[in-house]
Amino acid sequence: MVAQKTQIAPPKLGEPFLLTPGPLTTSYAVKEAMLRDWGSWDDDFRAMTKSMRSQLLEMLGEGADDFDCVPMQGSGSFAVEAMLASFIPKDGKTLVLANGAYGKRSAQTLAYLNREHIVLDKGDYLPPRGEEVAKILAEDPAITHVVAIHCETSSGILNPIEEISEATYGAGRKLLIDSMSAFGAIELKVADIRYEAMVSSANKCIEGVPGFGFIIARKSELEAAKGNSHSLSLDVHAQWAHMNKTGQWRFTPPTHVVAAFLEALKGHKVEGGVAGRGARYARNRDVMVEGMRELGFETLLKDRWLSPIIVTFFCPADENFVFDQFYALMKEKGFIIYPGKLTVVDSFRVGCIGQMDEHIMRQVVTAAKETLAEMGVASAAPPALALQERAKLAA
Amino acid sequence: MVAQKTQIAPPKLGEPFLLTPGPLTTSYAVKEAMLRDWGSWDDDFRAMTKSMRSQLLEMLGEGADDFDCVPMQGSGSFAVEAMLASFIPKDGKTLVLANGAYGKRSAQTLAYLNREHIVLDKGDYLPPRGEEVAKILAEDPAITHVVAIHCETSSGILNPIEEISEATYGAGRKLLIDSMSAFGAIELKVADIRYEAMVSSANKCIEGVPGFGFIIARKSELEAAKGNSHSLSLDVHAQWAHMNKTGQWRFTPPTHVVAAFLEALKGHKVEGGVAGRGARYARNRDVMVEGMRELGFETLLKDRWLSPIIVTFFCPADENFVFDQFYALMKEKGFIIYPGKLTVVDSFRVGCIGQMDEHIMRQVVTAAKETLAEMGVASAAPPALALQERAKLAA
Ligand SMILES: Cc1ncc(COP(=O)(O)O)c(C=O)c1O
Ligand SMILES: Cc1ncc(COP(=O)(O)O)c(C=O)c1O
Repeated sequence: MVAQKTQIAPPKLGEPFLLTPGPLTTSYAVKEAMLRDWGSWDDDFRAMTKSMRSQLLEMLGEGADDFDCVPMQGSGSFAVEAMLASFIPKDGKTLVLANGAYGKRSAQTLAYLNREHIVLDKGDYLPPRGEEVAKILAEDPAITHVVAIHCETSSGILNPIEEISEATYGAGRKLLIDSMSAFGAIELKVADIRYEAMVSSANKCIEGVPGFGFIIARKSELEAAKGNSHSLSLDVHAQWAHMNKTGQWRFTPPTHVVAAFLEALKGHKVEGGVAGRGARYARNRDVMVEGMRELGFETLLKDRWLSPIIVTFFCPADENFVFDQFYALMKEKGFIIYPGKLTVVDSFRVGCIGQMDEHIMRQVVTAAKETLAEMGVASAAPPALALQERAKLAA
Repeated sequence: MVAQKTQIAPPKLGEPFLLTPGPLTTSYAVKEAMLRDWGSWDDDFRAMTKSMRSQLLEMLGEGADDFDCVPMQGSGSFAVEAMLASFIPKDGKTLVLANGAYGKRSAQTLAYLNREHIVLDKGDYLPPRGEEVAKILAEDPAITHVVAIHCETSSGILNPIEEISEATYGAGRKLLIDSMSAFGAIELKVADIRYEAMVSSANKCIEGVPGFGFIIARKSELEAAKGNSHSLSLDVHAQWAHMNKTGQWRFTPPTHVVAAFLEALKGHKVEGGVAGRGARYARNRDVMVEGMRELGFETLLKDRWLSPIIVTFFCPADENFVFDQFYALMKEKGFIIYPGKLTVVDSFRVGCIGQMDEHIMRQVVTAAKETLAEMGVASAAPPALALQERAKLAA
């Protein structure tokens, strides 16, 4: 399929663009799909669920037949918890690869579950590398599973998932991936990258509205998951078995959100699937980062690690720069940005995902330029500490 | 506030009315409220969350100050699980009062949680009475909590929650209520009925769209809930503490569903709050039940136990009656009904909740009449076994 030009319409009602990694700006057609009620028990809705599951599976490419897709009510974190609890046996031991908030959240989830785990904590953003993973696994044969974050949205880094997968299976262990903010825009073909299960949600790169997540897992793992879950609601095996038997979700599904998601999947296909979607986001990033660098802003990450999902910028050292004011003035101009999550230096984030294209990204840069002028910020250059920080990262 | 006449518009796009207990037919205005994207971190959305929480608390009447409202992503069952896990300490012992699917589901949830519990199982629909509860509690001082279902939606029975509350507190224990399908249409004033926590969801009697539930709990219980939850996602204390500190949900909220819910709350107020909403539903039930009885249908429950939420009818004994065909023909006429859940005799259910009034309910009866004729069902009378079954119930 060839990537086509998307037609991005500005949001209606004067609402701002959401330059955030979900909820994000969705198309009007996606929202319009919510203008009707569906009975969740009815055939029509069962057909919608079925279509959604198979369209998501298609994105895995060759080999997808060995996998199945299980939607799960709740936010993305609910789906992550469901995945961890369902696929890691109660006596398993997990290595969590953390370089930001979402890696830490997976570890915290395992702590709630009382499942044994260790964390390779790389701090705010440094990527966990294949060699490190291999070393830890070699030293600790009790480890059964590795959990990795595909795009760690808290810094925007695209973690080296191929390396991690190779190290994991090289040591005969199993990989679970939190691909929340990457799936649908960055390939995760099962023929290229080996894993047992991954998770994402409705309102990331597929550009639906928030309300459910989905787990894609190897069928053999789904079968083996019976009895593992600590939770009735989050039991992936039970949801899967019930859905395959009845065509229905076990408990009331967010019907409108599902209808919106089907419309979002249509848009995803028209744009050229994962490749097309990823290309638009990469262009969004490139245009935006180039423009921001021209204004003097510096990215946290070196180019090689920048994801097409979200980009972290250091806050300018200039004492006139106050983030809350920057946020409010950007919002007035129609752009909602996102605060940073770094612990060492101040930062903010600009998302590249959602119904936006390079034209919008140029407007974002213009808005940032005007806002700096309004605030009396002469230079957007970060403090020296920030650049020292970045120097820790390989090019 | 005086109950006002509601203006019920037929659903658009030729979609059927959902005579089901959620997802249900919502107003067009509720769905239109989903036509914009909200940033979940933004002040505007925080204000929406705050308004929603305080409007829900208002429904508790005098004494509501001692309670707080915690919304929870996921379906209603997720909120039930969150409530049970958060308010029943790990070493507590629970008496679950079951007379249908939802009571059983609470017991099943406690089994997942490995929390000690016993079940008073009254079968398909017989109500758990205050005296029975008192007796069990007197005999087992280890019991700390009682879990009751307000309206057991699987039969439509309105359980005697006052009796149950009195028996519970008379024995010095604590009550948790699943008021999923009742809250918003049936009073649950804290000055009249004592309880520690209750749970309901967006798409029941408030008439929002599905996507989240909410827990309303005594503040002292919320404080004491710290560390009880088995699950990060479903931790009510953590959600509550975070929300009160930041104004935000811990994890991505279903922003569109929340916007729809605020519109639904507006409609609820205009109709006269809980009293007005309950009055319309009661009228829906009365008109529909009267009409169905004229056709020869019999209700499972005697009048005293019929809720204004959903009504179970026995399937006619006539051999020409096939439920799937009845369902399909009713759907063709614009009405989606619901299969029954009785184990002893065949049944189906008709909901009274959602954007429908007595005029619609008369159309439902007319459609049922026509459908019976089309199917060649001469009499809608149930088998003798059904009436024997009903005789077990007090008038
Ligand atoms: C990588 C990653 N994991 C998990 C989550 C959690 O998802 P949610 O906020 O929907 O619970 C996010 C959300 O942005 C994410 O980016
Ligand atoms: C009394 C009761 N409890 C729990 C539930 C479960 O809610 P959900 O289907 O949203 O998970 C329902 C749903 O109808 C209900 O009526």
